[in-house]
Amino acid sequence: MRIVECIEKKRDGKQLSTEEIQFIIKGYTEGEIPDYQMSALAMAIYFQGMSTKEVADLTMAMVHSGDTIDLSSIDGVKVDKHSTGGVGDTTTLILAPLVAALDVPVAKMSGRGLGHTGGTIDKLESVPGFHVELDNEQFVKQVNQNKIAVVGQSGNLTPADKKLYALRDVTGTVNSIPLIASSIMSKKIAAGADAIVLDVKTGSGAFMKDLDGARALAQTMVQIGNSVGRQAMAVISDMSQPLGFAIGNALEVKEAIDTLKGQGPKDLEKLCLTLGSQMVYLAGKAASLEEAEEKLKAVMANGRALEKFKVFLQSQGGDSSIADDPSRLPQAQYQIDILAEQSGVISEIVADTMGVAAMHLGAGRITKETVIDLAVGIVLHKKIGDKVKKGDALLTIHANTQELDEVKTLIHESIKIADKAERPTLIYDIIKG
Amino acid sequence: MRIVECIEKKRDGKQLSTEEIQFIIKGYTEGEIPDYQMSALAMAIYFQGMSTKEVADLTMAMVHSGDTIDLSSIDGVKVDKHSTGGVGDTTTLILAPLVAALDVPVAKMSGRGLGHTGGTIDKLESVPGFHVELDNEQFVKQVNQNKIAVVGQSGNLTPADKKLYALRDVTGTVNSIPLIASSIMSKKIAAGADAIVLDVKTGSGAFMKDLDGARALAQTMVQIGNSVGRQAMAVISDMSQPLGFAIGNALEVKEAIDTLKGQGPKDLEKLCLTLGSQMVYLAGKAASLEEAEEKLKAVMANGRALEKFKVFLQSQGGDSSIADDPSRLPQAQYQIDILAEQSGVISEIVADTMGVAAMHLGAGRITKETVIDLAVGIVLHKKIGDKVKKGDALLTIHANTQELDEVKTLIHESIKIADKAERPTLIYDIIKG
Repeated sequence: MRIVECIEKKRDGKQLSTEEIQFIIKGYTEGEIPDYQMSALAMAIYFQGMSTKEVADLTMAMVHSGDTIDLSSIDGVKVDKHSTGGVGDTTTLILAPLVAALDVPVAKMSGRGLGHTGGTIDKLESVPGFHVELDNEQFVKQVNQNKIAVVGQSGNLTPADKKLYALRDVTGTVNSIPLIASSIMSKKIAAGADAIVLDVKTGSGAFMKDLDGARALAQTMVQIGNSVGRQAMAVISDMSQPLGFAIGNALEVKEAIDTLKGQGPKDLEKLCLTLGSQMVYLAGKAASLEEAEEKLKAVMANGRALEKFKVFLQSQGGDSSIADDPSRLPQAQYQIDILAEQSGVISEIVADTMGVAAMHLGAGRITKETVIDLAVGIVLHKKIGDKVKKGDALLTIHANTQELDEVKTLIHESIKIADKAERPTLIYDIIKG
Repeated sequence: MRIVECIEKKRDGKQLSTEEIQFIIKGYTEGEIPDYQMSALAMAIYFQGMSTKEVADLTMAMVHSGDTIDLSSIDGVKVDKHSTGGVGDTTTLILAPLVAALDVPVAKMSGRGLGHTGGTIDKLESVPGFHVELDNEQFVKQVNQNKIAVVGQSGNLTPADKKLYALRDVTGTVNSIPLIASSIMSKKIAAGADAIVLDVKTGSGAFMKDLDGARALAQTMVQIGNSVGRQAMAVISDMSQPLGFAIGNALEVKEAIDTLKGQGPKDLEKLCLTLGSQMVYLAGKAASLEEAEEKLKAVMANGRALEKFKVFLQSQGGDSSIADDPSRLPQAQYQIDILAEQSGVISEIVADTMGVAAMHLGAGRITKETVIDLAVGIVLHKKIGDKVKKGDALLTIHANTQELDEVKTLIHESIKIADKAERPTLIYDIIKG
């Protein structure tokens, strides 16, 4: 088997065999296939796409390029959720205790990552005492006992994906649906998921700007799941503005607590119920998505969801009293309101720009070495479609500095007020396997 | 300027600017742009093509990546000819003295190269004593005096093209018209050509198998010439069977001598007259292609073309008596006829396979280190469309071994006899600037 022939085959729009894909990924992981051949192949895939079979083969070849996590000692169907990423996306913090309250096992491996705000672990570390240093035995025991635990990433998972992703980033081949889909699915499968719920974002703040692209990505990922024996469902949700109100680590923990009590932002709650229903349904804890949603609403109303969050924090060393008194979370020194300069209707909140503003405050990492300020961030008071009067507070900046010129400029750039504007659709589509 | 943005621009079908193309080629030549980005870009070019302006910019950026030859001390318009390569292509050996006999200066820089038979220098070295070790002063003096000299390649010409070609060869990006065209044209321009005549082959033995591809390549190269101030014309000629009769170094020299006397194979003579007319016309030695062809026929008829060949050989140390007595050229030990096994009409002579057979005899280089046997090769007696009777000699193998099983198998595979067959068209098209 020769890599040049594989490149030419794909370039000419033909289908690569399972053996060819395994040969490519093994060779690339082991350094026998050089970057310059892999990048040419990636560009050929960009133009010619991949069949369902090819993309499933690619996913499993990447899964088998490194370690895989065995969660078989955990009872029940392990359902994982993945979001393609956005600004102010607090869903993981909410969904984990929410579905665990219905006995869906949540065995979450999470990271810190670069971005506008921290990763799930950063956010949780704004709870005093909370830590993710669990060994495998403790992790399994806690999931079996409490149905929920979060652990830091360990092991050499999907090294082929890591290497290929870094290469795609510098060769103009990031934005290819088969490559994105196989990257995401390989990581989830290597981390031990039996079933996968996908939140594919669309809109100005999302990686997939247009709905057609988001739908194609979601369908491809669900098809991969079906092809490799993992149940999968997907939601296509809006990221034309930040999700919920809070952008920032401790601020998002507080928002998660509000939402678990049924007092969170309506868009965030609705998305969590939609994703959560899929998780509960795929875990076999409800006979339909509708039944699952009713059950989720019940545990929010009767306090069991919040209780599960507290048990989870406690079991990993966290101060669970923050759930009853969120003022015990890290607080920023300054709260500065940004006021509407005219009356009208909010017509635009550019999610990306708002995220960059939060990052400038210190909420996110610019490089791996950046130390995050867990207290800072932005809390919106208005969303697209809301009426405002001149002088109304549009949002509050939570900062540990008063030098906010750059942040204020970014915020003013990102928010537009017009005579009228429609509220954007939140859930565009549901993709079932 | 960032290379990733250049890759994305081309990937998205946009036009790269002159500055971007210069940045890319300079960066790649100097090693600042790595192979993995260049191969991704090459694949994007494969799919998206290049505009006339882009491909002209690419050509000139590659010209300026290394040394360029200054032929300004040679009088007249320096016309060079390039063939995209085939089997038994003796045209250079014939055209050089033929057009020089009409005072068109032929200042040829040539190489050895890999292939079914040797390069022009290898072929000429089958003339006893001939050498190409001329310094620049001698070279210029001989062209000014005799209108013809051939020198070995020196200097660091188009290093960007060398590097890019090697990369394309292993990344499935060879077969891209803008990349082929700029590669060829950059080498000719760097070697000092004022005007360029292109022989683009088509058919089973050619790089461009189909006529449309050959025409597009020819048009692109002529457009490059026009864009960068070099006159250019092209011929699209047949390579569905070997050109002429001889395949092999000394055998092709003999065939060149026959053709210069007007006694060569008709297809080879016709192609030489067509290409030669363009060279003479572009050099300003005739007012039309028709007039140029008449003048060429005259120097073949009156012996001046052959005389020019003898002067050329002599001036570079060669034994010019071979022109009158070709038996003084290296002779192979064995001449073995291959006979027709049935009567009919020759319907196929697969040029590639015939070339490989000649290479197996020792006529060509498999690796750079191979020592060529200048005497060996194949001389066809029949071409497609010729009638044969069972037992007629189809061709003669000139060999220095009697172990010819493999060669005979290749030859039998390559020749087909049918009830009827048309003679292929020799000249498909002429592309003028």
